[in-house]
Amino acid sequence: MNLTMLSLVTIVAESLLRDRLVSSILAAGAKGFTITEAEGEGSRHRRVSEILGANIRIETIVSEQVAEVLLSTLSNEYFERYAVIAYVSQVQVVRGTKYV
Amino acid sequence: MNLTMLSLVTIVAESLLRDRLVSSILAAGAKGFTITEAEGEGSRHRRVSEILGANIRIETIVSEQVAEVLLSTLSNEYFERYAVIAYVSQVQVVRGTKYV
Amino acid sequence: MNLTMLSLVTIVAESLLRDRLVSSILAAGAKGFTITEAEGEGSRHRRVSEILGANIRIETIVSEQVAEVLLSTLSNEYFERYAVIAYVSQVQVVRGTKYV
Repeated sequence: MNLTMLSLVTIVAESLLRDRLVSSILAAGAKGFTITEAEGEGSRHRRVSEILGANIRIETIVSEQVAEVLLSTLSNEYFERYAVIAYVSQVQVVRGTKYV
Repeated sequence: MNLTMLSLVTIVAESLLRDRLVSSILAAGAKGFTITEAEGEGSRHRRVSEILGANIRIETIVSEQVAEVLLSTLSNEYFERYAVIAYVSQVQVVRGTKYV
Repeated sequence: MNLTMLSLVTIVAESLLRDRLVSSILAAGAKGFTITEAEGEGSRHRRVSEILGANIRIETIVSEQVAEVLLSTLSNEYFERYAVIAYVSQVQVVRGTKYV
């Protein structure tokens, strides 16, 4: 079996940020992404979806280097202004070479 | 980069349990959560969604202590009566201090 | 708390593959699965969903042995012909014995 350890970056944000986040993900070097619709409630106990529409949950499988670039972008350009959640986990990917 | 290792708790359950699960999650000490609609089939090869409506998948990022409280609640108050899936993984979270 | 370390296998693929993937998952020995609707863009920067309908994201919690069988099936029967993503992570599952 051809398995490669890679970084799975998950981002949850307002749907309005979708196109901008996709641009940031591709600019960081990701080769693809998966989006699911979501609904979130943050620490202010106020649903973002009640005010600005639904949330999205974006996942992208990338190298550790691309993950660092992407998380820096998110931290520098999104976290001050938007209710963005971002986290990384390590996953074993089938045929991982197509993601790096 | 400000990354913090935290516990990602994922719960899959009947949609009917939504409000009750959200209360349990907040009562355990979580600061927020993300919900996506899902569909599940369990070991009895019977879709819960055919009988009682769709499923939900709830994720919450919490400290290890909050994860333990939440999993105990789920184990004690849900698992005997409902088809609930619950699991924990370790994730590196950007600006993790807002989740604890 | 009764927690068991198990393998969480996540598969993202065209919705058209749904029934076939479910058969492969159960044939590999999985006891259940969770499906969410998704949308993906791969390395060719062409949305599969624009051509063949939406994507699905399927998750199944299984033993390491079942994970290996399932990933082999995916690698051998799907990866040449379809835009399938598959990865594994380790998760701590509440009452894990019902998944193996």
